[in-house]
Amino acid sequence: MIESREHFQKELAKLNDLILKMGGMIEANIAKSIKAIAQADVRMAQEIIRSDDEADQLELEIDDLCLELLATQQPMAIDLRFITTGMRIGTDLERIGDLSVDIAERAIELAKQPLLKPLIDTPKMAELAQQMVHKALDAFVKRDAYLARSLWEDEAKVDKYRDLITEELEDIMRKDASTVTRALPLMLIARYLERIGDHATNIAEDVVYMVEGKVIKHNPKS
Amino acid sequence: MIESREHFQKELAKLNDLILKMGGMIEANIAKSIKAIAQADVRMAQEIIRSDDEADQLELEIDDLCLELLATQQPMAIDLRFITTGMRIGTDLERIGDLSVDIAERAIELAKQPLLKPLIDTPKMAELAQQMVHKALDAFVKRDAYLARSLWEDEAKVDKYRDLITEELEDIMRKDASTVTRALPLMLIARYLERIGDHATNIAEDVVYMVEGKVIKHNPKS
Repeated sequence: MIESREHFQKELAKLNDLILKMGGMIEANIAKSIKAIAQADVRMAQEIIRSDDEADQLELEIDDLCLELLATQQPMAIDLRFITTGMRIGTDLERIGDLSVDIAERAIELAKQPLLKPLIDTPKMAELAQQMVHKALDAFVKRDAYLARSLWEDEAKVDKYRDLITEELEDIMRKDASTVTRALPLMLIARYLERIGDHATNIAEDVVYMVEGKVIKHNPKS
Repeated sequence: MIESREHFQKELAKLNDLILKMGGMIEANIAKSIKAIAQADVRMAQEIIRSDDEADQLELEIDDLCLELLATQQPMAIDLRFITTGMRIGTDLERIGDLSVDIAERAIELAKQPLLKPLIDTPKMAELAQQMVHKALDAFVKRDAYLARSLWEDEAKVDKYRDLITEELEDIMRKDASTVTRALPLMLIARYLERIGDHATNIAEDVVYMVEGKVIKHNPKS
C-alpha cells in the first residue's frame, strides 16, 4: 500500500512536470508571436505554427495520464481535484497555444505591408497575457489560491488594453479607409491576447476551486 | 451492490438530462441572438445576457455531479469516459453561452444604427452553428461516433462562411470608411459563430473518444 501511494505521488509529480513543460512552451510562443509582428519575422511566425503539434501532443499526454490516474487510483478529495484540474488546464493551455498560432498567422499577413503605426500597447498587452499564464500555472503548482486570485486584477487590465487598442484602430480606419487591411489584423491580435488572458483566468479559477474546494467560477468576487 | 449499480445508472441519466437541458438553453440563445440582430431587438438581446447566469449555474451542477460520481463510484472504462466527457461538455457549452452573450452585446450596438446590408450569410451561418451544437449533443447522448464525425464537414462550411462574410465586409470598409462602425460588429459576430462551431467540434471529438476510447483530437481525419 505504501508502495502504491509512492507510485501515485510520482504520477502526480509527473502530471505537474507535464503541465509545466507545456506551459513553458506556450509562454515562449506568446512572446515569440509578438516579436514576429514587431520585426516582421515570417520565419519566427512559421516556427510557432509548426511547434503547435508538440503542444497538442503534450495535451494528449496530460489527458491520458489524468484518465489513467482516475481509473486506477480512485483518488479522493484534493488529489481528485488536482487531477481533474490538471485535465482542464491541459485544455486551456492547448487553446492558448492555438491563439498564439492565430497571432502568428496575423504576423505573416502583417509582414507583407509596412506597419500601420509603431506598436506600443500590443507588446505590453502581450507581456501581461504571458505573465498571467505564468502566474496561473505557478499558482497551480504551489496550490496557492492567493496568487491565483491576483489574476482578477490582471484580467481587468487586459480588457482595458483591448478597449484602448480597438478604439484607436477604429478611429484610424474611420478617418482613412485605406488603412483597413493593416488595422484589422492588429485589432484581431488584441482580441486573441484578451482570450489568452481569459484562459489564464479560467486556470486561476480552477486553482482556487482545487485548493479551497469552493467554486468561484462565475462569481470572481468571492 | 445491485442497488448501488442502479443508483449509479440513475446518476448517469441525471448527467445526461442536465447536459441536454443546458444544451437546449444554449441552442435557443444562439437562435435568439441572431433574431435580435436582424430585428434590432434590444430587449431580446438583454434577455440572452440575463439568462447566462442560469447557464453558468447548470455548468456548476454538471461539474459537481461529475466530481461526485468520480469520487464515490470509481467508474471504469466507458463510464469513466462518459463522466469526464460530461465535464468537458459542460465547459464547452458554458463558453458557447458566453459567445451568445457576445453576439447579443454586438446586437445592442448594431441596433443603434441602420443595418449596413441585409443579413444573408450571417443567419445561415448561425443556423449551421446551432445545428452543430445540437448534433454534437445528440451524438453524446446516443454515444454515436458516426454522427459526431459528421461535424468535421460542418466545421469546414462554417469556416467558409466566416471567410465570405469577412471578405465582403472588409471590401465594404475599404471602399467607404464611414461604414467601419457598422461593419466591425458584423465581422466579430462571424468570428463568434465560428468559435461556437469550434466548441461543437470539440464536443464531437470528445464523443468519438468516449465511444471508441481513441483520441482523434488534433487528427480529425481518422
